[in-house]
Amino acid sequence: MQIPQPPKGTRDFYPEEMAVREFIFKSWEKTCRTYGFEPYDGPMFEHLELYSQKSGDEIEKQLYAFEDKGGRKVALRPELTPTLARMVASRGSMLKRPIRWYSIPALFRYERMQKGRLRQFFQLNMDILGVAQVTADAELIAAVVAMMNDLGFTAHDFSIHVSSRNLIQQLFAEIGIPANATAALLALLDKRHKIPPEEFSHELNGLLDNQQLVSRVNDLLTTGLIHDIEKRYPDLPSVRELAELFRLLADYGVGEYVAFDIGIVRGLAYYTGIVFEVFDTQRSLRAIAGGGRYDRLVSLYGGMETPAVGFAAGDVVIEELLRAKGIAFPPHYRTSLYIISFDDMQGRETIRWAQRFRRAGIACEFSLTPGNIGKQMKLANAANAPLVLFIGGDEAQAGTARFKDMRSGKESLCSTENAIETFRTLSA
Amino acid sequence: MQIPQPPKGTRDFYPEEMAVREFIFKSWEKTCRTYGFEPYDGPMFEHLELYSQKSGDEIEKQLYAFEDKGGRKVALRPELTPTLARMVASRGSMLKRPIRWYSIPALFRYERMQKGRLRQFFQLNMDILGVAQVTADAELIAAVVAMMNDLGFTAHDFSIHVSSRNLIQQLFAEIGIPANATAALLALLDKRHKIPPEEFSHELNGLLDNQQLVSRVNDLLTTGLIHDIEKRYPDLPSVRELAELFRLLADYGVGEYVAFDIGIVRGLAYYTGIVFEVFDTQRSLRAIAGGGRYDRLVSLYGGMETPAVGFAAGDVVIEELLRAKGIAFPPHYRTSLYIISFDDMQGRETIRWAQRFRRAGIACEFSLTPGNIGKQMKLANAANAPLVLFIGGDEAQAGTARFKDMRSGKESLCSTENAIETFRTLSA
Repeated sequence: MQIPQPPKGTRDFYPEEMAVREFIFKSWEKTCRTYGFEPYDGPMFEHLELYSQKSGDEIEKQLYAFEDKGGRKVALRPELTPTLARMVASRGSMLKRPIRWYSIPALFRYERMQKGRLRQFFQLNMDILGVAQVTADAELIAAVVAMMNDLGFTAHDFSIHVSSRNLIQQLFAEIGIPANATAALLALLDKRHKIPPEEFSHELNGLLDNQQLVSRVNDLLTTGLIHDIEKRYPDLPSVRELAELFRLLADYGVGEYVAFDIGIVRGLAYYTGIVFEVFDTQRSLRAIAGGGRYDRLVSLYGGMETPAVGFAAGDVVIEELLRAKGIAFPPHYRTSLYIISFDDMQGRETIRWAQRFRRAGIACEFSLTPGNIGKQMKLANAANAPLVLFIGGDEAQAGTARFKDMRSGKESLCSTENAIETFRTLSA
Repeated sequence: MQIPQPPKGTRDFYPEEMAVREFIFKSWEKTCRTYGFEPYDGPMFEHLELYSQKSGDEIEKQLYAFEDKGGRKVALRPELTPTLARMVASRGSMLKRPIRWYSIPALFRYERMQKGRLRQFFQLNMDILGVAQVTADAELIAAVVAMMNDLGFTAHDFSIHVSSRNLIQQLFAEIGIPANATAALLALLDKRHKIPPEEFSHELNGLLDNQQLVSRVNDLLTTGLIHDIEKRYPDLPSVRELAELFRLLADYGVGEYVAFDIGIVRGLAYYTGIVFEVFDTQRSLRAIAGGGRYDRLVSLYGGMETPAVGFAAGDVVIEELLRAKGIAFPPHYRTSLYIISFDDMQGRETIRWAQRFRRAGIACEFSLTPGNIGKQMKLANAANAPLVLFIGGDEAQAGTARFKDMRSGKESLCSTENAIETFRTLSA
């Protein structure tokens, strides 16, 4: 039989790959806890209706949808926000506000295979629900910066591009874009950086069919600073909100990471206000994270009106960026201690020693197959044990055993009574 | 719109439920690390062939199988062992032996809904590959005991029932069961405790159609002690192996937890040797865990011959048992510190204070909506913060702020400079 392969676009996590995944997840969890977020999770699949027309076209086309044995239409979750909104809608006012939740879900999208894209991947999701003010948007963007900092990235590595759905729509109205062209224009903006400039230009001309409008749009797109827009449109509420956001972010001490970018639209259908995306400064990778405000999703699912803001960051792009920066993952030990016996071919004395350490919470291993010292040492090396304990032989007569530090080569004697204490001193 | 529901047989994990899940997972991880096991994982779905005729009939009938958009037949994983065997087969001799791996996968089975069964659940899987000797079976059963002990269970709460596929088959041959009846007899034995005695008796008579054979089988099934079988069949290799297993388990100090039980068969098709199941002593729940030896699965997938032994424990039954025993889950704090401001309606000073604590790795929160002290105290209580820091007001003139311990009511002053130190002392 030919050895079976995992499905295309999925990953096998051998212990080496799992160590990297755990490095990322643990860092994410630290950030979330530090910012006062609680974990939650939902089912790995949901009824198909949960995603229909709420996640946006692109995600809907990529759904792993199928019928279960009971004939119900279900889909593997392509994102967690619909589940979150459903859960919040379902508990209603029983949930105390603000809701500050995070999750690290496995997600599924049947995407065209390319760099940075997989069909099963993980995301960090952080959301604040119940706060209508821009303070929540600021808190969340500060958390994104902390998440990247905790992983080891600095302002040299990434920046956060911020815009506002409201602002863009209000500016479109200001420059005279017809209401019925707004949605198509947003969709075109969203893919601007993914298509050649000529193609963008061609589609823009085709869409508006008016040279004056086209040049006004191009004019808008070259606007770099929120101050410029503030000067031209000082009374637009969305402009005042964005300006307040940037002031708050300066208070958080993360001003250097954020910049206004009118080209940020976000593909998801449910965003209603401020939106943002995180990019590596080289712009060599896909967006590292993205998010924004979605004040209508909970009520769309029948829940009470609940203002909400959230973001998601994918593990695949973050791992690529970690490797590109050469960030060293912590060394991975299978066990803290390997016990080697000179003469205990039945293994009974070894087992008793091992159980003493394990009962004290110390990770401990020994050979399950009979073999001489050389063979046992080879196994200790394969397990990457930093410390080895030699038992039996001449020393056993004297009631002692011998630790060897595999990194320094240093040896230390111990008795049965002080073995655990000695181990703790040696591995401190 | 009516609020959508999660699919039947799946769970929403709100932060309260997530705290219980994390309590169980963290305990599992501790056991695994202590016993020298490394984490691994595979994809959430696999090609359908991976499960066909290898997982056993019952599991195959419960598969969530479907076609992806590329027309490939895939299935959500109903168990992790086939993935493990595929991964080991695929890397072959590049993987150092022994392989000592654990995982906590989400799994999917379209089961009839009943107590202790869900359609999406979690399992702990621990496996040792590359060791043919019964020492590996003993190591793994000792790990099961440690896993249960670490969760808080004692010998009053559970016991491990051990048997051997080889032994049963050899005993069947000894008492004259025709070879072509063995498989059906094993299947009947496997469901013995799930059907009424009369039904078992009726099916047994129908299957063997020979009164003498029936009474010999019933005789076997009343055999309680491995010593009795050892006396009657001292030369059977499977008997000697089982006796060695029990001697090793005594060396591990877990002898009181294990008992021979000839009625343990295990439904899965791939077991080849010693098998075991863990039950609560009341026998009021489904099996808590189960496992055994499966020496042929890796080579069945085209890999090199690899002896293997493993077990799985489900989260649903374990949570039921924890609740039945009344084990207290640790209290869950969303944040360690809540900052309350007397006069900072813009929030700018509060943000700066919060960022100081967060940069020191301290979980910290504050109100994102403007409000008086009473309103902020209410939010601090909702977040279940053990400590509160009052800033601003009269004390701010003197350059101080005031901690309040929400559990004891005790208050302590601090300055900007020693705030983090004071926090650490108060929460130690």
